[in-house]
Amino acid sequence: MVEEKTPGVPYDAEHRRSLGGSEATALGVDVGGTKILVGAVTKAGEVVEARRYRMDRSTQELTLSSIRTAVEGFMGAWADTAPLALGLGVVGQTKPAAGLWVQAMNLPIHSPVPLGRLMRKQTGLPCVLDNDVHAATLAELRWGIGKEYKDFIYLNIGTGLAAGLVSNGQLVRGAANYAGELGHMLVDPGGSLCPCGQRGCLEPICSGDGILAQVREGLIDYPDSILCEPLRDETLTASQVFQAAEAGDPLAMRITSKVVQALSTALTNLVNLLNPAVIVYGGGVLKDNRPVGTSGLMEKVSGLVSANALVAARRAFIGIWPSHLDPDRAGLLGAACLAWDYLEKRGR
Amino acid sequence: MVEEKTPGVPYDAEHRRSLGGSEATALGVDVGGTKILVGAVTKAGEVVEARRYRMDRSTQELTLSSIRTAVEGFMGAWADTAPLALGLGVVGQTKPAAGLWVQAMNLPIHSPVPLGRLMRKQTGLPCVLDNDVHAATLAELRWGIGKEYKDFIYLNIGTGLAAGLVSNGQLVRGAANYAGELGHMLVDPGGSLCPCGQRGCLEPICSGDGILAQVREGLIDYPDSILCEPLRDETLTASQVFQAAEAGDPLAMRITSKVVQALSTALTNLVNLLNPAVIVYGGGVLKDNRPVGTSGLMEKVSGLVSANALVAARRAFIGIWPSHLDPDRAGLLGAACLAWDYLEKRGR
Repeated sequence: MVEEKTPGVPYDAEHRRSLGGSEATALGVDVGGTKILVGAVTKAGEVVEARRYRMDRSTQELTLSSIRTAVEGFMGAWADTAPLALGLGVVGQTKPAAGLWVQAMNLPIHSPVPLGRLMRKQTGLPCVLDNDVHAATLAELRWGIGKEYKDFIYLNIGTGLAAGLVSNGQLVRGAANYAGELGHMLVDPGGSLCPCGQRGCLEPICSGDGILAQVREGLIDYPDSILCEPLRDETLTASQVFQAAEAGDPLAMRITSKVVQALSTALTNLVNLLNPAVIVYGGGVLKDNRPVGTSGLMEKVSGLVSANALVAARRAFIGIWPSHLDPDRAGLLGAACLAWDYLEKRGR
Repeated sequence: MVEEKTPGVPYDAEHRRSLGGSEATALGVDVGGTKILVGAVTKAGEVVEARRYRMDRSTQELTLSSIRTAVEGFMGAWADTAPLALGLGVVGQTKPAAGLWVQAMNLPIHSPVPLGRLMRKQTGLPCVLDNDVHAATLAELRWGIGKEYKDFIYLNIGTGLAAGLVSNGQLVRGAANYAGELGHMLVDPGGSLCPCGQRGCLEPICSGDGILAQVREGLIDYPDSILCEPLRDETLTASQVFQAAEAGDPLAMRITSKVVQALSTALTNLVNLLNPAVIVYGGGVLKDNRPVGTSGLMEKVSGLVSANALVAARRAFIGIWPSHLDPDRAGLLGAACLAWDYLEKRGR
């Protein structure tokens, strides 16, 4: 396990003192497919310290030991006031009340893991967990858009694609805490096969992994595309694809146009169905789309949603905005928010 | 205004006495596109008396005067214990807190109407209103499926198509009390034009009006269809189309197959997105599909949803069931439920 300090997220002693030195914190653990971000966060949502650790996802056991080592590493290195609690945001399905990580698709969690109990045993802290997009949505409720609006959608597009649905200030969880799987909304009947078994889902068209897969396939027809080289070098990102489309690369334009079409269809469906005031977005894929220009991808999506939604729904709909929360910290803030929510319920 | 007693819903004096004679009631007014159903309903959801009145929807003024006359007619004819409050379920958009009927598409409500205030002035009773499908969903919460499940969807297919979404025992209302417009989910990109302006919406494929329109169009290609005569006689119903499909009529089979496909796509999207425990359905179109046989339309839809939804969502999903509430009374119970919810909040 190599400990890597997050580039650009150093421990800032001066900033720390400005926060009052001994201000209480909760720990957040953002468990992603390739990295683990651990941080200490104040009740006001200030990240006091954050460190990044590698995830070894070869097996379920190594996945869990990566999490244990990351938390141990952080608590050893960051010898400040003892944190009050620990929250974990993980991909896949969870049972928060039981502290259970039920299953995941992007990490090899095949049998339910009592992660809450395991981490409590390790750290001595109260430990709570939830799905990562649910957690980021709760952070929006506490520190972001939720301070202004009670009905909103948090759209996360990273490696995968999911949404957090908020109705009247409450996260919609569903019967098994699994609500928000927007990635498998059917937007292109007869389209390409999704790992979920359906054809034409949103995720393979618009997610980071999906966009790269489309480049890979498309290079057969467009061998001269400027995406060829970065794909071969494994440095290609979704943002580069959108930029190449702006620059007129035909393959990039074809993929980007499909992303805009599919995303606007799905979000129009959501606006008609849930009548939100706002959609805020975050996640790696859309990160470089902020600040949003008039030619930006999400501006186009926003224009289509406003044009196509039902009159009464569109009148109440203010727009599609990038989240004000730092996109590199959304998962971490979400995880820490779980801990603060827990503490608040217990009157701390 | 002609007063018509609902066939099969006579005043049953013996049943009334069995309820305790003077049991308290609230009035419900179910304002539909072609009729108005007014009834007295006990707190336990028993319909003590119900009468049906004609709706004249030539103009906004005549629509409102139809409602006034219906309520006046009912209160004059039904000289029992004074009801405690009056609830109105209306098509279109409402602002319940302001007692405002904002607009409707199937009735000529073009400018906002202070219907709550108008009815209070007329009856002297506290008057509350809401959208009719929201109201029916609240009735499911109080007297139906909500007694067992906290996360469910109420699907209403009548002249139009809409849904009531319930998360953790709460109706999802949205920012402008307009959530639930499932009818305009895109299920058939490039399909026929919907009055909303989009192509390929669910409603023109699956609603009662939509099914009849498809028969009308389809008769050009299938002039020998057994649907020809009942369509000409204006007696054709959606149920007859489904029955004709079972009997092997090619046009009916084509339409029914499209209904099954579109509905299962939309409901799979809903199950993935909202992770409900159950979907219950009501409304005129599906009325004759109960009791549901293995060859029934909704059985086929149910099978497809269970096959196509994500594993975790489908594991938590119990099924698609007809509502236990009388389909002829769902709107009336919904309207009365609004009144009972109001009374309960005020401790009555």
